[in-house]
Amino acid sequence: MERTLIGEVGQHAGETVSVSGWVDVRRDHGKLVFLDIRDRSGKIQTVCLPNHPEAVETAQTVRPEWVVQIDGVVNERPEKMRVEGQNGDVELEALAITILAQAQELPFEKDTEVNLDTYLDNLPLTLRSDRARAIFKVQAEITKAYRAFLDNEGFKEFQAPKLIGDDAEGGADVFSVPYFYDKTAHLATSPQFYKQIMVGVLERVYTIGNVYRAEKHATSRHLNEYTSMDAEFGFITDHRDIMALETRLLHALIEHLRETCAQEFEMLGAALPNAPDAFPVLKLREAQQILGVSEEPDLEPEHERAICEWAKKEHDSDFTFITHYPVSKRPMYTMEDSDDPGYTKSFDLLFRGVEITTGGQRRHDYENLIEGIKMKGLDPEKFSYYLQAFKYGMPPHGGWGMGLERLTQKMLGLANVKEATLFPRDINRIDTLLSDNALHADDTSTN
Amino acid sequence: MERTLIGEVGQHAGETVSVSGWVDVRRDHGKLVFLDIRDRSGKIQTVCLPNHPEAVETAQTVRPEWVVQIDGVVNERPEKMRVEGQNGDVELEALAITILAQAQELPFEKDTEVNLDTYLDNLPLTLRSDRARAIFKVQAEITKAYRAFLDNEGFKEFQAPKLIGDDAEGGADVFSVPYFYDKTAHLATSPQFYKQIMVGVLERVYTIGNVYRAEKHATSRHLNEYTSMDAEFGFITDHRDIMALETRLLHALIEHLRETCAQEFEMLGAALPNAPDAFPVLKLREAQQILGVSEEPDLEPEHERAICEWAKKEHDSDFTFITHYPVSKRPMYTMEDSDDPGYTKSFDLLFRGVEITTGGQRRHDYENLIEGIKMKGLDPEKFSYYLQAFKYGMPPHGGWGMGLERLTQKMLGLANVKEATLFPRDINRIDTLLSDNALHADDTSTN
Repeated sequence: MERTLIGEVGQHAGETVSVSGWVDVRRDHGKLVFLDIRDRSGKIQTVCLPNHPEAVETAQTVRPEWVVQIDGVVNERPEKMRVEGQNGDVELEALAITILAQAQELPFEKDTEVNLDTYLDNLPLTLRSDRARAIFKVQAEITKAYRAFLDNEGFKEFQAPKLIGDDAEGGADVFSVPYFYDKTAHLATSPQFYKQIMVGVLERVYTIGNVYRAEKHATSRHLNEYTSMDAEFGFITDHRDIMALETRLLHALIEHLRETCAQEFEMLGAALPNAPDAFPVLKLREAQQILGVSEEPDLEPEHERAICEWAKKEHDSDFTFITHYPVSKRPMYTMEDSDDPGYTKSFDLLFRGVEITTGGQRRHDYENLIEGIKMKGLDPEKFSYYLQAFKYGMPPHGGWGMGLERLTQKMLGLANVKEATLFPRDINRIDTLLSDNALHADDTSTN
Repeated sequence: MERTLIGEVGQHAGETVSVSGWVDVRRDHGKLVFLDIRDRSGKIQTVCLPNHPEAVETAQTVRPEWVVQIDGVVNERPEKMRVEGQNGDVELEALAITILAQAQELPFEKDTEVNLDTYLDNLPLTLRSDRARAIFKVQAEITKAYRAFLDNEGFKEFQAPKLIGDDAEGGADVFSVPYFYDKTAHLATSPQFYKQIMVGVLERVYTIGNVYRAEKHATSRHLNEYTSMDAEFGFITDHRDIMALETRLLHALIEHLRETCAQEFEMLGAALPNAPDAFPVLKLREAQQILGVSEEPDLEPEHERAICEWAKKEHDSDFTFITHYPVSKRPMYTMEDSDDPGYTKSFDLLFRGVEITTGGQRRHDYENLIEGIKMKGLDPEKFSYYLQAFKYGMPPHGGWGMGLERLTQKMLGLANVKEATLFPRDINRIDTLLSDNALHADDTSTN
């Protein structure tokens, strides 16, 4: 018999269907056994009744996470037995149960709350929890909405290389990779140079892919490998065009999540963000004035949280743009604001207490860019490949990088970004712990 | 004035519009200057007439790849001046030209055919050629069609890590990455283990991302970093379900390209593939019999080409599935065919002479998988993280990995896979040549 997805069983009341999935829960009442079966589309309660003794016998042997095929009749539940939610008005009366795969006894119940290390030590199991599955369904919808919006705005997706040659910017936090001919390659910390080159080619581009930071932080918001959703486009007036497009993108993304993930948000106790038509915009100095703190070149994490509280209270917004970081704090390609010398046409987007985006207008004039490189004490010669794009005509342009995992984390109100990362890599862990000593070396949830 | 995209200028005949873009070609006839302007949506001929002397004067200073904004009137061309193609019936009469960015003199004309090394040395410029822009528009449409098809089939996209721990399979062709605590990490050669784990979580998954092979080949079909389009799904009967889904995917992909990229295919002189409802399927031994060659464990490149010629001639198909590679040739997770012992339920998909996909059914039973690991002389202990998925119940499943660049190359009939890779990395090059000695070390276009 052809398989019916569990999410569609309700349309087959009175019929015999065949479902396949995992045993989510078994409740054994002796002659009567209940099995909650789970597939990609949802769950259904199956009942094994004494008039089908073989089904009961098999049901008594199965345990959580066994994989089964159940042929059965879809019965409408009596009025008083109905429950809220998916398939709450039907149940499957098992006629025959086929075991497709067994499972060993679980070390703990799949949906039990466990500490983060146990969770990460057992991801092939713990990712099957309702909670984790909801998180990563939402994440899949975020990338889908991101792409759909930009496709519709005339952007083209491109594949950025992650293996780069010279680390021309001389960052300390870069992973190196021994390459051929005794050369050293590096893992990209961002697709920045490539997306700018691509503006010269296709004008509007985006790319979603892994980037790497060899940072030694072990906090609730750092990862050594994360997914960056980058966009870059030409023919802008200034950074405000970029912020306007990102605002529209986030509105579209929130609407998409409202339409596709209401159930997941409810299950996770998460609320969709408040996103006014225009998000509050503050120059860094204005933000510091509001907070009554000194003019440092960047916001401290506690200041990011405080300014988000301010924006929520004053503008009912979960998002705030901070603009005009000093030239000293931003990379060499960042456009200085001639109306506000020493400060840049750059921005961060803060969302529920953390920065989820860094963006801005770039220097598009060849000579001006070389000046920016020299101002940072860097050697233009080392950037000659990248500089070709500017030598041969680049329009005013800019864009952003958005961290997928942080966005997912904050969208769903998760305590740690690792919960929003399928297989997180950090200083202590690549799937398995790297060192016993490393355990919680420096882990804090406040930084 | 608000910008009008060049692709939409034709809708504004008689109106004054403002276009922005690059100078593609300048033809200077003294008092009359023609500028072909290019933006992301296409090209248009601009004419600067003596009645607007300032526009003529500016037009005489600009050179190819300068970035300009042109305000002008959209004139319908006289009947005899009309040409085929985009904006062939209109031209823009320039009223005012604003220079947004200058460009230095080009080392060669953008659309000149140059040798591969010159092309790669100058990608920020050469990628702007009509040819390269067409190739990467098609590539963007391929990933879009791939995702749309699988989304519609109930698959979820996930983000696979590229930084992996132990290289448990002990492959020689793996890049290593010095990590924290004096550990060595590695760059993933495929998302195989993660996509299988994810079948246990979301049942149907796909991921598109970079993978790495530290192979020392320098051929027209090898890359050290390429984009793998992976898919994996549960509750299959056997490998034929996977081949059937991939066939449907390719039909959908070809239809999408027919609808969105006809112009690019025409410009590149490429033809959409012949894809019959069902592609020819041959066991490896049958293919070898047809070719009259001995039963080796794999096909040589020239045999792949020959069997594709056979399929084209006999079945009018550009695609051929080769199944039942010997157990010895396939990885430890490959399902053996109990009806054909010693051979596996695996397949390659050949397309126009090369393999673009490797796939198959996997061992889903925990004990059976451990047996597979041991048969390869590997230590199950080293796979304990991955093995958890199987310990806790995995359905019969399988999937494929498809190389995006090879697919693009063969779809468009390009001689070298590097032409279908934006920023190719090979043994000799990461953007710039790694070693003068390396130049063409071992480059052949026949392997």
